[in-house]
Amino acid sequence: MNQVKALGFDVFGTVVDWRTSITREGEAFGRTLKLSGVDWLEFAVAWRGLYQPMMDKVRSGQIGWTKLDDLHRMALEQVMKEFGITGLAEKDIDHLNRAWHRLDPWPDSVPGLTRLKTKYVLTTISNGNVALMVNMAKRAGLPWDAILGAEPTRHYKPQREAYIGTAEYLGLEPSELMLVAAHNGDLEAAQSFGLRTAFVPRPTEHGPGQTTDLAPTGNWDVVATDFVDLAMKMGC
Amino acid sequence: MNQVKALGFDVFGTVVDWRTSITREGEAFGRTLKLSGVDWLEFAVAWRGLYQPMMDKVRSGQIGWTKLDDLHRMALEQVMKEFGITGLAEKDIDHLNRAWHRLDPWPDSVPGLTRLKTKYVLTTISNGNVALMVNMAKRAGLPWDAILGAEPTRHYKPQREAYIGTAEYLGLEPSELMLVAAHNGDLEAAQSFGLRTAFVPRPTEHGPGQTTDLAPTGNWDVVATDFVDLAMKMGC
Repeated sequence: MNQVKALGFDVFGTVVDWRTSITREGEAFGRTLKLSGVDWLEFAVAWRGLYQPMMDKVRSGQIGWTKLDDLHRMALEQVMKEFGITGLAEKDIDHLNRAWHRLDPWPDSVPGLTRLKTKYVLTTISNGNVALMVNMAKRAGLPWDAILGAEPTRHYKPQREAYIGTAEYLGLEPSELMLVAAHNGDLEAAQSFGLRTAFVPRPTEHGPGQTTDLAPTGNWDVVATDFVDLAMKMGC
Repeated sequence: MNQVKALGFDVFGTVVDWRTSITREGEAFGRTLKLSGVDWLEFAVAWRGLYQPMMDKVRSGQIGWTKLDDLHRMALEQVMKEFGITGLAEKDIDHLNRAWHRLDPWPDSVPGLTRLKTKYVLTTISNGNVALMVNMAKRAGLPWDAILGAEPTRHYKPQREAYIGTAEYLGLEPSELMLVAAHNGDLEAAQSFGLRTAFVPRPTEHGPGQTTDLAPTGNWDVVATDFVDLAMKMGC
């Protein structure tokens, strides 16, 4: 544990609250464009529901490398159809697609990251592309030292290259890099490739009735209640 | 000019003073290891002298993609031989090689970048690799939003991909990205690929007798005396 030099963060769900933020963005979008009869929370959940299936197309080689902004856009067109939203201008669809660049952090994210940054290199290990991560960080004040993960390694988690390639970019051994995530599956993959692991549950990521990832299911190096607790446990 | 959304910085020479810093690192190294008779300023200049020739091996395809830390190491072994330095332990050579991670910024760099960051995305467009740039930024307090340039695009400047690939990572058109550099040649390449350009001379990068890059030789969009002047000229 003393070896750890960098913390790599899963972002969607772990650092930011996509469900509330996409709902809020959808509602504002609907008001501006006078779209009626859309339940934007359902819309947000349906859109996010296509996240893994879209990445699977890339992971399986069915389509070549495609950044998340473009996968979000493919999914958005499908979800708009399902919700009967038609006839929008290109620039409006693009604005809605970039709602993922405007997600709000959990309340403890910025205070915790700010403390952790005094002792560790902080990077993203997200499936989000660089532009999405940079714009989100700029708006939300997330103090990353580097934006790595899927796009610079051209592989979506949980594929090995996304984790190991991030360690390589940082010039670190896998054991010197710790994944911080609210998802046991992500941590399981990271641990299997030699990274250290920290679990921070986000019990309302999927809303009040959430049943998954409420507790650690593996032997993670650290379990913390939030990022401020993580900072304390990491000696910051 | 109003289109510019991100500033991409050349780093060695433009943001940090490699010559003074490498000399200082060499002198400290020599004292610790009791190496006598080495002129560390000459050593620094000789080491930097192999920078372009080493990258040329990659640019020409003579060797495959090799990150700058590794090119610095190849050059270091050659320079140590020239200066008659032998018998060092691997860990000591590695420490000296990482002197490039510990370069000091020019006095105006951090104040200017801090102001520019309020309005623009700030990225590196350096030939330095990600670990080098991240460690340098952490030590020197350089507030980058992203570390891009050579390694994530796998091409050394002045090759097109290093500039265009950086714009692509940021989701920007080339004209929305401005290169800031103390080197006319770097700006010439960037301009030829559609980027905006800002020249900030660093008249002592090569010491008191410097004869190159003292004045703009092209039609750059902005010419500033230092990064604080650049911030003012960019409306920050």
